[in-house]
Amino acid sequence: MDKYIYAFGSGTAEGDGTMKDTLGGKGAGLAEMSRAGVPVPPGFTIATQVCNLYFENGNTTPPAIQEEMERQLTKLEETMGQKLGDTDNPLLVSVRSGAKFSMPGMMDTILNLGLNDETTKVLANKSGNPRFAYDCYRRFIQMFGNVVLAIDKDDFEHLLEDLKKQRKAKLDTDLTVEDLKLLTQQFKGVVQQKTGKDFPQNARQQLDMARDAVFRSWHNPRARHYRRMNEIADDLGTGVNVQTMVFGNLGDTSATGVGFTRNPATGEKVFYGEFLINAQGEDVVAGIRTPRPISELQELMPEAFDELRKITTNLENHYRDVQDFEFTIQDRKLYMLQTRNGKRTGPAAVRIAVEMVEEGLISKQEAVLRVDPAQLDQLLHPVLEAKSKASLNRLTVGLPASPGASVGRIVFTADEAVKQAARAPVVLVRAETTPDDIHGMEVARGILTSRGGMTSHAAVVARGMGTPCVAGAGEINVDTRAKRLQCRTTTLKDGDWISLDGSTGDVFEGQAATIDPDPSGSHLASFMSWVDEFRTVGVRTNAEVPRDAKTARKFGAEGIGLCRTEHMFFAGERIEHMRAMILADNETDRRKALEKLLPMQRKDFRDLFEVMDGYPVIIRTLDPPLHEFLPKREDLMVEIAAMKASNESRGIKAREELLVRVEELHEFNPMLGHRGCRLGITFPEITEMQAQAIFEAAVQCAREGIRVIPEIMIPLVGNVRELENQKRIVVETADKVFTQAGMKVDYMVGTMIEVPRSALTADQIAREAEFFSIGTNDLTQTTFGFSRDDSGGFIQEYQKRNIIDQDPFAVIDRDGVGSLIKTALRKGRETRPDLEIGICGEHGGDPKSVEFCVHAGLDYVSASPYRVPIAKLAAAQAAISRGKEELMRTA
Amino acid sequence: MDKYIYAFGSGTAEGDGTMKDTLGGKGAGLAEMSRAGVPVPPGFTIATQVCNLYFENGNTTPPAIQEEMERQLTKLEETMGQKLGDTDNPLLVSVRSGAKFSMPGMMDTILNLGLNDETTKVLANKSGNPRFAYDCYRRFIQMFGNVVLAIDKDDFEHLLEDLKKQRKAKLDTDLTVEDLKLLTQQFKGVVQQKTGKDFPQNARQQLDMARDAVFRSWHNPRARHYRRMNEIADDLGTGVNVQTMVFGNLGDTSATGVGFTRNPATGEKVFYGEFLINAQGEDVVAGIRTPRPISELQELMPEAFDELRKITTNLENHYRDVQDFEFTIQDRKLYMLQTRNGKRTGPAAVRIAVEMVEEGLISKQEAVLRVDPAQLDQLLHPVLEAKSKASLNRLTVGLPASPGASVGRIVFTADEAVKQAARAPVVLVRAETTPDDIHGMEVARGILTSRGGMTSHAAVVARGMGTPCVAGAGEINVDTRAKRLQCRTTTLKDGDWISLDGSTGDVFEGQAATIDPDPSGSHLASFMSWVDEFRTVGVRTNAEVPRDAKTARKFGAEGIGLCRTEHMFFAGERIEHMRAMILADNETDRRKALEKLLPMQRKDFRDLFEVMDGYPVIIRTLDPPLHEFLPKREDLMVEIAAMKASNESRGIKAREELLVRVEELHEFNPMLGHRGCRLGITFPEITEMQAQAIFEAAVQCAREGIRVIPEIMIPLVGNVRELENQKRIVVETADKVFTQAGMKVDYMVGTMIEVPRSALTADQIAREAEFFSIGTNDLTQTTFGFSRDDSGGFIQEYQKRNIIDQDPFAVIDRDGVGSLIKTALRKGRETRPDLEIGICGEHGGDPKSVEFCVHAGLDYVSASPYRVPIAKLAAAQAAISRGKEELMRTA
Repeated sequence: MDKYIYAFGSGTAEGDGTMKDTLGGKGAGLAEMSRAGVPVPPGFTIATQVCNLYFENGNTTPPAIQEEMERQLTKLEETMGQKLGDTDNPLLVSVRSGAKFSMPGMMDTILNLGLNDETTKVLANKSGNPRFAYDCYRRFIQMFGNVVLAIDKDDFEHLLEDLKKQRKAKLDTDLTVEDLKLLTQQFKGVVQQKTGKDFPQNARQQLDMARDAVFRSWHNPRARHYRRMNEIADDLGTGVNVQTMVFGNLGDTSATGVGFTRNPATGEKVFYGEFLINAQGEDVVAGIRTPRPISELQELMPEAFDELRKITTNLENHYRDVQDFEFTIQDRKLYMLQTRNGKRTGPAAVRIAVEMVEEGLISKQEAVLRVDPAQLDQLLHPVLEAKSKASLNRLTVGLPASPGASVGRIVFTADEAVKQAARAPVVLVRAETTPDDIHGMEVARGILTSRGGMTSHAAVVARGMGTPCVAGAGEINVDTRAKRLQCRTTTLKDGDWISLDGSTGDVFEGQAATIDPDPSGSHLASFMSWVDEFRTVGVRTNAEVPRDAKTARKFGAEGIGLCRTEHMFFAGERIEHMRAMILADNETDRRKALEKLLPMQRKDFRDLFEVMDGYPVIIRTLDPPLHEFLPKREDLMVEIAAMKASNESRGIKAREELLVRVEELHEFNPMLGHRGCRLGITFPEITEMQAQAIFEAAVQCAREGIRVIPEIMIPLVGNVRELENQKRIVVETADKVFTQAGMKVDYMVGTMIEVPRSALTADQIAREAEFFSIGTNDLTQTTFGFSRDDSGGFIQEYQKRNIIDQDPFAVIDRDGVGSLIKTALRKGRETRPDLEIGICGEHGGDPKSVEFCVHAGLDYVSASPYRVPIAKLAAAQAAISRGKEELMRTA
Repeated sequence: MDKYIYAFGSGTAEGDGTMKDTLGGKGAGLAEMSRAGVPVPPGFTIATQVCNLYFENGNTTPPAIQEEMERQLTKLEETMGQKLGDTDNPLLVSVRSGAKFSMPGMMDTILNLGLNDETTKVLANKSGNPRFAYDCYRRFIQMFGNVVLAIDKDDFEHLLEDLKKQRKAKLDTDLTVEDLKLLTQQFKGVVQQKTGKDFPQNARQQLDMARDAVFRSWHNPRARHYRRMNEIADDLGTGVNVQTMVFGNLGDTSATGVGFTRNPATGEKVFYGEFLINAQGEDVVAGIRTPRPISELQELMPEAFDELRKITTNLENHYRDVQDFEFTIQDRKLYMLQTRNGKRTGPAAVRIAVEMVEEGLISKQEAVLRVDPAQLDQLLHPVLEAKSKASLNRLTVGLPASPGASVGRIVFTADEAVKQAARAPVVLVRAETTPDDIHGMEVARGILTSRGGMTSHAAVVARGMGTPCVAGAGEINVDTRAKRLQCRTTTLKDGDWISLDGSTGDVFEGQAATIDPDPSGSHLASFMSWVDEFRTVGVRTNAEVPRDAKTARKFGAEGIGLCRTEHMFFAGERIEHMRAMILADNETDRRKALEKLLPMQRKDFRDLFEVMDGYPVIIRTLDPPLHEFLPKREDLMVEIAAMKASNESRGIKAREELLVRVEELHEFNPMLGHRGCRLGITFPEITEMQAQAIFEAAVQCAREGIRVIPEIMIPLVGNVRELENQKRIVVETADKVFTQAGMKVDYMVGTMIEVPRSALTADQIAREAEFFSIGTNDLTQTTFGFSRDDSGGFIQEYQKRNIIDQDPFAVIDRDGVGSLIKTALRKGRETRPDLEIGICGEHGGDPKSVEFCVHAGLDYVSASPYRVPIAKLAAAQAAISRGKEELMRTA
């Protein structure tokens, strides 16, 4: 016969820590602790499989299992010398869910089960503390009523509040025994009224009902949603842990507390925690009484403290990770209620991992797997101080577009940002940013936009600069002309203080305090060196200015995966030449303007090559639609209309002529319009100028002894003939430059894979392309038909409504975009087995996406400078997990 | 040894008509005619393979072939009793190219080869016509100079013109023998000057040079481009036909002419053609002398006429198709120079096909294959009269967006169109049309836009209405406010006449005459009944108003493949309710507005169901971004700015408020924005209202005995959960309506496959979808990353530069979009083997695309009403050719 119920406690257990599938995480932990001799209140775990049987059996627990539980319960009662419902020595238990994977707060817990009118009296007598007994009872009725009988919590809370008001009691603890007795009567009344039945007095029946309610909680909407979000299978089921109650509130020789074996904020190896004398677990976190630091326990109860120290140290050694534990001392006797691997901050995660390797506790490989890549952000950016944050008014939550905290005075234009930044830190607030705003973004401490998604202009540029950014905060209405923003009922004007958390998307009114990242980087340096040991794919960076490239090199980037040349055309007088080029209506004039840009571009590339000495630099030819470089159409229209209405004729003709060209370039859907290689094909002289600048810079560098590895990338190719056309221009230009220079430089010509057609015809495209770079931003846009600039609103709605789990602009969509990437790889390498393939979308800095890239077989990922360490760590973890999988397959 | 040269003539031939691969089309035809005893001037054909050998052999003809030609030439000289270059009886020949596939005008011809200073004198003496001889000579020098020696034609023409001016001669024929002698001297001078060598006097050398020039012409840019356009392989090569010259200009017993065995314009079975006495072939088409109808030949040369009649009748029976022939009568002796299947108009094609079946000449299957689907348009729309067209100034050429001719007075707004249409036919001219223009488009005879492609709003709506439309005429600048259009140097204002040819894209200034289609449809009816016999896929129509649905039924549409419900919301008061719905900022107000729309929608659907009694009707839920229903953002901005500048305050507040909402809805790329099912998901009440209207209408119709088959289609699904969400609303609404009505109607819920992700995850989507409709317009946009509204300009550039062969919005792109369609079919039917799959993009009316759909295994195609017959014919042809392929495979 199958075994479905496993006892634990008293220094032994039927299960063990490896049995998470059967016992759930909590059950396995209790079994493991029991086996290790840790004092755990005895009990038993009902296996997760029973949860499925329960549903298959028409929402009832099968009789055979019912019998098995009967036997286990009897054994437990014998161990404890107590009996459930006994009027002499009643057994009280807790009933808790526990699935294979931790689902914090998702399912329900019932404490003090076994209390009824009679046993409560017994508890009152035996403890000599009637207040304690009735407080337990009323809590039990409420929990049972809510979890098992599905009665609204408020129906109980509301009675408690009324009574407190009547008694003018501030705290629950101000109520008397009589008050609590009254309350239990009232609570039972609520149960009667809501269910039509009396509150069950039979303790055995209470247990069955509670167990089944835990099973049912597996399918509550909260839990289902959590599983969907975390990709946990629906058929795993939850275990049920039935455990003897122990009480930390039996007087001054009792206590309860929580702790960590190391400091979870800093990682320092110190015993860390807090406790309360004469209290129950929930009191420690409720914040009504101030808990005391755990070191004080040593004086008060030295034996219990020493035992706790010893046990938790053993547990850390046993689990080989920081332990987050809960304990209760009942009448000087220590019980461990729970232990689990502790959550920790980024800096702590790195320090703990490194120190545990030094202590010989874990291997380097394990250390690398111990740090969540996203946590590294905390080592690179300042964060908002928690207390200061709590004291401010949270205005709204936008998208966490670029991590880190930022505090500053509001400005509404880039020019204003530049003007004010000298005097005080500024936060630039825009409906959306455009390349015109770059100078303001450069000086701002933070950027806030009301529109746009994770890959909007603001987000991409901010991440590149390492500037915190909250994007797409849709509740904010920005009125640039009036210099104010409105968010629901709050209005802020320029000069007001605002605080952003770019890691969470939170926006606060006022000036928060910030904490700078730990400047001592020795732990990080060791950690990253191990990361590099295990990593199998390259990590490059997306950068166009030497400053960003240098930052990325500092973080260990192995080349530039994407240099967006258009970003080079916005600054200073360049935009003027660029405009002249666009406004030219013939090739000659266009070439004249391009000639002016040539030396500037050459210098741009020269500087990048210098920083990237010895590493490849992928340079993408001009990509965005040309009208991005011109004034906005509607601005011009409005200006002209206003001039006309006020009979102002000076300058109107020039504006009207400009508008004609702007109208010509106007597009309904610029994302799908005249951009990318389509520009280079219709205006070959642009590609020619860029190629000339690249090769002249390369030759110049090579002469100076810099090792240059240029890779010229043609964007938005969907058809091999587009690439043929542009490649010919590049190759011809290279030949010309090399002939003039009397020397050659090795280079490659490749393409972006960023529209579905290029992935679908990658075999054809690879005939011409010497490398592929997957542009996952645009590929996501076209595969879904989502504009990254416009989808912010409905993607949030989609997430709320459970239609998508993750923003596909943040995490690669494996079924759609991922399948196209795999097609591109397969077909591309069919034609050209040594094809270099990387990814340069924003996904290159996202851990889950990097994992996909490693598994799919890409050669490198490219991320914005501040994401390089994250990408490296994610890549190393994916390589390790892949290695393990392969080991399993070949074993 | 391989044989490379094939003789023909004198009632026999070494090759035959099946040998097009080797002899080329012309050579095979000459061989076949010779074998059939047709009097063909003797000669020989150099095989197409020699062309490749010529290039492989470093642009020289290999010696073995040179020798083979020598032998054939000697044989020919023996047959003719003449010798090339002989001063007693010189042989003169023509040298013509001839590839496997006809490439009209693509390659070059040389006549009168063999003439030199000496043989010209002989020809003058023998013919007794020195003028004729020197005219032949000067023509030969010019052709040889141009084709073989690559001298510009103008270098010769210019001397001829000068001489004519000097002599005050109007026509070439006004020049005297002496003049022509002088001209030959001058022409030889040009050759000397341009090539540095004398004009070759050696006739044998002339022949070698001409032959090689024909080979070289295979790779001239014109020919290469033609082959790429027509998907003809570059390595086929051209044959060379060397044929004895015969002369129709040897006096009044000689003549030359062209003809058809049936009237190519009407299809009537009459001997049809024209001829000139004492003339050479080119004179007939040059238009200097007026040719005489062929019937007159019967009186002048009865024997030759009878023989011609007999020969051509035999040729028609032999080739089983209308023959287009050229003949020359030299001294009363008839020679056939060429015969080929004749080109014909659409009406003629249908009539000929039907009558040939009646005559027992061809099978019904062959008849169906004989008509080009695109030609059917000519039976459905008026056309511009050719002469009238020639007399007008052609302004520009745009995209042939909706076929047929239209002539009218220019109007620049929809309102003006409605106002003027009662008085005179109008052509609506817009930069682009929007749904706001529908009322004007309905009354206009034609539509002309300066922007947008083959699937722009104007194009789609015009095709639906059967109104001729030229779209994307980029050279035209429309100034709506000033009520004028500018096209290069021409300015037209409203009220001016304009003529459009929607089948070619031509735009003419002025009022052209038109020819109405043949109203007698009996041939068409027979023809279409055969088409239906062979057709294997269904043909539905895209229609939303009963008028269009009726038109489509008249053309035999078997249901509605796409009813775009948004088109129903623009007319009359509906737009007001629609705007109220959009401007509502809460669900209650939105529902109020929707309630007003409900009865209107219900009636819409009721009317459609009635027309489509017994046929399925696919209704798509609301698809376009909501701001399409609101005033344009920039218009509002301009209006407000103007009001402010002129201190006008009345009404400004309302406009500002409207602008706020318009701004909220504004999107950078609406095509990829908040539209399709994304609307129905965020505003479920819209889907609910539409479903309610559909089912209430269905119930109502079913009660009246109309057989309703509604298929509800959810647009823009990329993720099965989107469909789940919308399907649930539809099903719940259906249940509600059916419960109330006390009856049920069968229906299906399905989806569009129109973003790559839906094709890639079709297996998942088919779990919910009961049918797929491939939306190839949007699928093309997203697969290429081309906006159909913006790509007009660069797609034309791409075609010019040979980057794409065809506009992918007109013809399905098989490598990219096609591969996604195949994926959708395979994966969809994996999940649901009986899944109904059709196509509803504009491609449904394009013959090549229909062919793809038939081969891919779709169940039906859906086309705009006027394209239904075309789609049916294309489908039948694809089915026949597929059947043949399968026959070949199984044989």
